[in-house]
Order: sequence, then structure tokens, then C-alpha cells
Amino acid sequence: MSDDSSDLPPGFSRRIPDDDDRPRLVCDGCGYIAYENPKVVVGAVCALDGRILLCRRAIMPRRGFWTLPAGFLELHETTAEGALREAWEEARAQLDLEGVLAVYSIPRLSQVQVIYRARLLSAEVSPGPESAEVRLFDWAEIPWSELAFPSVHWALGHYREVAGEARFAARANPPGELGNEQAL
Amino acid sequence: MSDDSSDLPPGFSRRIPDDDDRPRLVCDGCGYIAYENPKVVVGAVCALDGRILLCRRAIMPRRGFWTLPAGFLELHETTAEGALREAWEEARAQLDLEGVLAVYSIPRLSQVQVIYRARLLSAEVSPGPESAEVRLFDWAEIPWSELAFPSVHWALGHYREVAGEARFAARANPPGELGNEQAL
Repeated sequence: MSDDSSDLPPGFSRRIPDDDDRPRLVCDGCGYIAYENPKVVVGAVCALDGRILLCRRAIMPRRGFWTLPAGFLELHETTAEGALREAWEEARAQLDLEGVLAVYSIPRLSQVQVIYRARLLSAEVSPGPESAEVRLFDWAEIPWSELAFPSVHWALGHYREVAGEARFAARANPPGELGNEQAL
Repeated sequence: MSDDSSDLPPGFSRRIPDDDDRPRLVCDGCGYIAYENPKVVVGAVCALDGRILLCRRAIMPRRGFWTLPAGFLELHETTAEGALREAWEEARAQLDLEGVLAVYSIPRLSQVQVIYRARLLSAEVSPGPESAEVRLFDWAEIPWSELAFPSVHWALGHYREVAGEARFAARANPPGELGNEQAL
């Protein structure tokens, strides 16, 4: 999930338009402003009888490492629809979303992550094209040293905090953590 | 906050790239894919002694109507930073964020709204360039028929639901509501 905003498309340059206060991507020919915005990632901590669904990534970055079913929200999609779609695409998993577990920001990547807590409706899961393997883990089995991203670590910790609570406040980044560490 | 994704920048067309399953904005010259993503709006219901801060819009759309201090998240900004910045830009207001009140989706506009509950640190507020007027309203004074957007209505209702609760679950769109009604 790298941020390629430093790559200019052909014919565009970065400058501050009139009536603005920060550089934008502007077409040199016609002045069209291509606004760049943070991207939304949606995903879920999905559990069944206390076991948590993780997916081993078949794609870069962090191929071979374990992650939550999550991915970029598409145009004209709600965050809930996106979280359900990603669980299906990556793990053929069907969910019941229970609430927003966390809203994380990764400012280096200009990324906002909306992570749900979800109940997995069946243990019948299987890898989609972006997953090498999908598996339900007991808490004691979670492969902490092989998690793909800091936010996977945060979300699992926050899931554990609210275990047993029917209603819970949405969590944010742990204090001082901005997700800049690739490895955990 | 209209969605201009139907306007193609010069030299680009919309087509499905190899290895993808939906149309993307592709440069006809070099094949560069300009991914389009939903936009994140950040804002806050800000209160001081039970009175709620609203801003009368000085700009389109919905000029003259009342809204929460809120706006588009910028690149490399956290959602909390964005909500604080918008409150300052629109109302010269300083806040203490208390938690995520709601995550709303407006799929027609490809918009995700992260709305905080916040404590206003001082009643000394004044309009920034995008506001014609800013004011603190007692609950009974809120100008319901002059609110700018459905999500302002939702957020005020959700604020009222959690009044007095130190910790609260993040709310979502009211059932069946997708923010398609411009007027309330």
C-alpha cells in the first residue's frame, strides 16, 4: 500500500492554485486541478468462537505476512459494504459487522483505516486471489512476529480490549504510533 | 461537495485495466492509472456547557445554511488533526476531541465522514473565510430546517443520544439513509 503521489502524471505539475494555500496537481495545458486525497482502507477483525481470521498475503508489499481482510474502499461504496467485500475477496468469508472497532490514520501513507469488529458466520473460509492462505487463529497462536503491518497489531490488541463488550468506543492509533515502522 | 469524477481530465479515458475488475482513469498516452478514491470528510460536534457550535456557510453548496465545522482531510494529515484544523479554519474554535461520534458514508458522493464529539475550549469563536457567521446554539434553538446536509442532522441526533456518556460506540448512517436528500 505505497503512496505514489510523488509521481507526477505526464503534463501535470505541482503548484499552489489561486485561492488555495497548498500545492495541488495542476494540468500545465488547461489548468485542471486533480485533487489528491487520503485513501480509505476498510477491514475487519473477524472472529468465530474466539478464533480470529487472518490472511497470508500473496502480493506485495509484505508478501508472506499475515494481515486482516482489508483493502481500499471503492468509489460509491459504504465503509460497511467495503469491509464485507474485502472479507469475501480475500478469504471467501461472510461476516456480520458489530461496530467500528477503530479509526486509524497512517499520515505517511495518507491513509485512513476504518476497522470493524465482525462475527464470522462460518468457519468455511478459503483464500481469494490476493491471499496465499487463510486461517482461524486462537489468541495464543497469533503469529505476532509475522504480521504484515503495525495496524494489524493495533487492531488485534483493540479487539482483545473489547472482547466480551457488546458496545465499545472506537479506538484510535496507540499514543505516539503513526504506523511508520514496516516491521513490528 | 459534489463528485466531479465524471469529468475526464484531458488525455485520459475510463477503461478496465488488465488484472482489474472495474473501470479506472487511464492516460491514453502512457497507460498511467490515476486511481480515484472516496474522499474523507472530518469534522466535529463541538459543545460548551451544552451549547453546540454551528457555522453558517459562506460558500456553495448550501450557502446560507448551517453546518458543523468539517471539511476534506488533506494528504499526510490524521483524522484528528483534520478535525482540529477545520474547526480553526471555519470558526476559529479550539477543541478537545473526546472520541469518534460517527462514521458516515455518502456513497452518491463517494464520501466517508469521520465525525468526532469535542469539547469546545472557549466560547470565543469567530467566522473564518468559509463561514458567514458562527454561533453556539442551545439544543432548543438549533435551526433544524436550515441545516446544510443530512449528515449534520444525523450527527446532532447522535450527539444527543450519547450526551452524558463518557464513552460511547461510534454511530453509522441511520438505517436506510444514504444522504441523498439535499434538503432535510
